[in-house]
Amino acid sequence: MDDNRVLIFDTTLRDGEQSPGISLNTAEKLEIAHQLARLNVDVIEAGFPIASPGDFEAVQAIARQVQGPVIAGLARANPGDIDRAWEAVRDSERPRIHTFVSTSDIHIEHQMQNTREDVRGLARAAVAQARALCDDVEFSPMDATRADIEFTAEICQIAIDEGATTINIPDTVGYTMPDEYTRYLEQLYAFAPGLSGVVLSTHCHDDLGLAVANSFAGVLAGARQVECAINGIGERAGNAALEEIVMLLSTRGDAVGGLHTGIVTTELARTSRLVSRLTGYLIQPNKAIVGRNAFAHESGIHQDGVLKERTTFEIMDATTVGLEANQLVLGKHSGRHALKQALEELGYSVDGQALNTAFKRFKDIADKKKQVTAMDLEALVTDELREETGYALESFNVEASSVRPPHASVQVRMPDGSLAQGSFTGDGPIDAVFHAINAATGVDARLREYRVDAVSEGQDALGDVNVVLELDGHSATGQGVATDIIEASGRAYLRALTLAVAKATRGDAPRPKPEVPEPLPSPAT
Amino acid sequence: MDDNRVLIFDTTLRDGEQSPGISLNTAEKLEIAHQLARLNVDVIEAGFPIASPGDFEAVQAIARQVQGPVIAGLARANPGDIDRAWEAVRDSERPRIHTFVSTSDIHIEHQMQNTREDVRGLARAAVAQARALCDDVEFSPMDATRADIEFTAEICQIAIDEGATTINIPDTVGYTMPDEYTRYLEQLYAFAPGLSGVVLSTHCHDDLGLAVANSFAGVLAGARQVECAINGIGERAGNAALEEIVMLLSTRGDAVGGLHTGIVTTELARTSRLVSRLTGYLIQPNKAIVGRNAFAHESGIHQDGVLKERTTFEIMDATTVGLEANQLVLGKHSGRHALKQALEELGYSVDGQALNTAFKRFKDIADKKKQVTAMDLEALVTDELREETGYALESFNVEASSVRPPHASVQVRMPDGSLAQGSFTGDGPIDAVFHAINAATGVDARLREYRVDAVSEGQDALGDVNVVLELDGHSATGQGVATDIIEASGRAYLRALTLAVAKATRGDAPRPKPEVPEPLPSPAT
Repeated sequence: MDDNRVLIFDTTLRDGEQSPGISLNTAEKLEIAHQLARLNVDVIEAGFPIASPGDFEAVQAIARQVQGPVIAGLARANPGDIDRAWEAVRDSERPRIHTFVSTSDIHIEHQMQNTREDVRGLARAAVAQARALCDDVEFSPMDATRADIEFTAEICQIAIDEGATTINIPDTVGYTMPDEYTRYLEQLYAFAPGLSGVVLSTHCHDDLGLAVANSFAGVLAGARQVECAINGIGERAGNAALEEIVMLLSTRGDAVGGLHTGIVTTELARTSRLVSRLTGYLIQPNKAIVGRNAFAHESGIHQDGVLKERTTFEIMDATTVGLEANQLVLGKHSGRHALKQALEELGYSVDGQALNTAFKRFKDIADKKKQVTAMDLEALVTDELREETGYALESFNVEASSVRPPHASVQVRMPDGSLAQGSFTGDGPIDAVFHAINAATGVDARLREYRVDAVSEGQDALGDVNVVLELDGHSATGQGVATDIIEASGRAYLRALTLAVAKATRGDAPRPKPEVPEPLPSPAT
Repeated sequence: MDDNRVLIFDTTLRDGEQSPGISLNTAEKLEIAHQLARLNVDVIEAGFPIASPGDFEAVQAIARQVQGPVIAGLARANPGDIDRAWEAVRDSERPRIHTFVSTSDIHIEHQMQNTREDVRGLARAAVAQARALCDDVEFSPMDATRADIEFTAEICQIAIDEGATTINIPDTVGYTMPDEYTRYLEQLYAFAPGLSGVVLSTHCHDDLGLAVANSFAGVLAGARQVECAINGIGERAGNAALEEIVMLLSTRGDAVGGLHTGIVTTELARTSRLVSRLTGYLIQPNKAIVGRNAFAHESGIHQDGVLKERTTFEIMDATTVGLEANQLVLGKHSGRHALKQALEELGYSVDGQALNTAFKRFKDIADKKKQVTAMDLEALVTDELREETGYALESFNVEASSVRPPHASVQVRMPDGSLAQGSFTGDGPIDAVFHAINAATGVDARLREYRVDAVSEGQDALGDVNVVLELDGHSATGQGVATDIIEASGRAYLRALTLAVAKATRGDAPRPKPEVPEPLPSPAT
């Protein structure tokens, strides 16, 4: 391969998905994975198959259905994890097993409570086992940047000798600095000569705001794979933001010897919106590349300059990241065919009953809103992905005023098809609706988080409601979209409730307790 | 001064405040400036006095009332700007004039439409004039990182010869990379020998996600002032985030020769919340240092590790940035004295009528909410800061249901004290309330943005509503807090309306047109 080509390894569905409060179902993970394939990432880390049956199912579905990228599954350095990871990814055209073990003394002593000799044995056995199953094996020495470099190099060399094809050096706790990381990797090349025959990879966390700079320093030191996540999500302050490292290489790659990626940058904005909507993780307006204002000029001199010559204050064109690309607009007279075509332009293939449902929702919205834009359609389709067999809002009635406490009554369609009613007088209309739903369903869930964003600008914008609720120690998220904030809230709450009840009924161990006997491996290698 | 001490120059109120959609009044700017003083920043860039009478008034108020930090005012390199900046800051105990001119050919030719010789003259005259007025003068060659380095060095040397005491090297468009910025500054030291006798400063933008890393590279190259903003707000993708560069130096300063700042880090979280609430710029959950999840551990192995030994997965303690510090809780039986004391602990000095108003609001909330926390109090006090003479929500009545379009009627207290009524049937209850307010006030404003966040966790959390509306080309923001989302929305909308009407009546030129004859200087030097 081209020496200057940097591989993009997306961990949105693994490290990203294990962010606090994020809980994606298989349909949602598949939707994101398909979009990552359109974005043309080189590797999708689809999940951590041993973590739960749901994780396994999602990784397997992605391996079977998503074409193009390598599909990787994560596994601790033990036989059970590696077998399970292989089962999940083996049906992919390009499967990868990613296994890891810590090399820092602080992890070896305190967290794993074993010895360096144990680590040598674990790494050797894990890579050998993985390589016997799969030609493409990645190995990560967890917490490498805080570990003894000679010992880490020794473990990397062991992994390479056993057949690892990619060696990833995680800054697990977001501790390193660009110059320090560069020196670390340079020394690693010296101590582990085998490294020059495999792909070196970075995995940097953003605790000190340096994830992108450290990843870039790694690339300058010779790494040719960057592990990153859309919108920079992940454990704590998250991973390096995919869109930032990609646009950095796209904008400044020429200045550093022609480094480049294979990413279709015009898909960045849409991918970012999709991930934000499905995870409920919002994007701050000043977020680089994908924030609402990342390309907005406010001061007079800037606006004046850009009008005279764009490059005076712009180093990137907003259209290169796919902003302002979708000018598509439908109205109340648009038919089923126009909707299908518009959805296809957006990359959604919708047919049969799903198209009927989407069309009905579209007409409801178009009756209330003059213009239905590409962003509205994205929100609606995303909303429909949340549709599950469960509780549904049949009708509601709310009265709120400054003189009486707000009152809500609701009718809820139960999973068995029956109708249940409930009413409540609360502190606010939303509070009243949620309590009325609890009364109707007989489920005593507790609201933990609540947020409303407008999907697009203007008085008739769709409201996009996100809730997080808790039931017997299980937390679940739900999202709802409607022009009416109360309807959107009710939909979001009932979806979260459906998910929470399923978790409680399945007898999932409430998070944070892991489902496997020993502590769950780190999603933040 | 200690050679390893890095000065923190906060530009939240200048570069930050000129972010799209942010519009702070003088009371709000003062509140932020007082908090920045508690945070112990070294310099507050309070605004850009020539930009508008409102900007001048705010800078002057801060110069007169805020003790401790240097108070700086921005000025283009022309006599009118510099005189106006001096008028605004002269009453401070420690005033500074900050003047700038572009040195990049792309700006000189396209944006300023003059010559390098003009730039020499402008820089010389501006610094001489500023220095005759003020002992503390900062000079910035705008767009320096894209400019010819020898020419930029020549201009810096001219500024130093004329008496500039700080030279700031802006990466105006967020284009540079850490190694490149380091080399640039090293060469600058070689070409402009006078630099070693003044303070070198960085001002980095985050367009490619490198603002903090570039600032840090600058410090390693010898800079001892970092220009940054709370939450990283500012033009486009914003400035280097103050909290990130501060915690980077606090956490890793020892590894780079003992570099440190004078920041009281335990005030970081509160400052971040205050700025987010007043600007309406939310913070994403995975934002480093101040994001909701920046210190949250989700995976089993991480939680397990942290329980065994905190440092396995944590490089900072959340309490060092002021998270989880405020355990203070009031209830419905708490009296006026307890409230006053609690507010004082939070740094708010409230007396007389303001205390009465705050107490009334507190009691309303405490009746509905079992516990009133420090975060709730912060939100309430912030909410009260928005109180202006203008429109106020007297009463409202809303009915929303799945069978009829939602209907709202409102009573609005007009600025002249009279009561006006309005009603409307809309697409959603919030839409109906906003149109009803338009009908009551006779003002035809258009909603542009709408967002709701919960102040704290739980079913009885306060709703914090932010709106942006537009009236005759003027945009204005408003914020409202209440347990009832409809009440909070009405309050927020009326505050924005008050602001927008004031702007339209004053005959402010609608943004983006500047009020000064020539294009407004860049807030993003």
